[in-house]
Amino acid sequence: MSAVHITPLTEDLFGDFLGLIDALADYEELDRPSAEARERLRSDAFGERPRYQAYLARAHGTIVGYAICFETYSSFLARPSMYLEDLFVLEGARKQGAGLALFNHVRARAQERNCGRMEWQVLDWNMLARDFYQRNNAQHMNEWLLYRITF
Amino acid sequence: MSAVHITPLTEDLFGDFLGLIDALADYEELDRPSAEARERLRSDAFGERPRYQAYLARAHGTIVGYAICFETYSSFLARPSMYLEDLFVLEGARKQGAGLALFNHVRARAQERNCGRMEWQVLDWNMLARDFYQRNNAQHMNEWLLYRITF
Repeated sequence: MSAVHITPLTEDLFGDFLGLIDALADYEELDRPSAEARERLRSDAFGERPRYQAYLARAHGTIVGYAICFETYSSFLARPSMYLEDLFVLEGARKQGAGLALFNHVRARAQERNCGRMEWQVLDWNMLARDFYQRNNAQHMNEWLLYRITF
Repeated sequence: MSAVHITPLTEDLFGDFLGLIDALADYEELDRPSAEARERLRSDAFGERPRYQAYLARAHGTIVGYAICFETYSSFLARPSMYLEDLFVLEGARKQGAGLALFNHVRARAQERNCGRMEWQVLDWNMLARDFYQRNNAQHMNEWLLYRITF
């Protein structure tokens, strides 16, 4: 566990970060981001008003995973929520605590910022992820259904 | 339909806004916001960096409904998403198009801001809402499950 270190995304780590995003796309059998999307990811991370925060996990000197998060809002609590958009560890680097270290890092940021909740979505077939979250005291809010319009 | 007008939340309408939030809490059988939560809702709406946007629907001169939304982010699209946190119309004022006008207003803001998606959550028992969204071409993303940690 102590071999895993979490570091915020910086410009010099952006190439590693994109490599991990590609690996997640492959894992979820989705398209990798286009060249234009890669540029938007860069400006949305490092612009004047960053649209997300990202953290990288380094195990034994190698970047092996990442998390993306940002603040949303709960009108019911009248407090910000922390939304975990992505959490991913390369398949060859699992079982070393990198996922847990990323998860705990984002949770700690949420508590620092006085968030009332941390929330995220999991694909129903991803039992590895669902078991991980269950072990870490997260609740599946099964009465809430996600709706979407894509433009 | 033409009798419904949408207006952004302003300080002088904040009392009406809180009344609608109370009515939604009653409808969902949840606690109404505390005095402290009401103050946070005010500062989070009108502070230097507003945490949410709210819109009110007026029908025949009376405030009858509201929507709360804010921007989130899709790392897959590398674009902001518009998240619809609340959409509510007083029970006595339904079937006049206020809900649709609020929904369309938020959708138009999302498109103006170049969002790739608009997303929201619906309680599974709320068939009135689910039918409404279905009629308005929203997709229930039934493979995504919501997880939460409450602090």
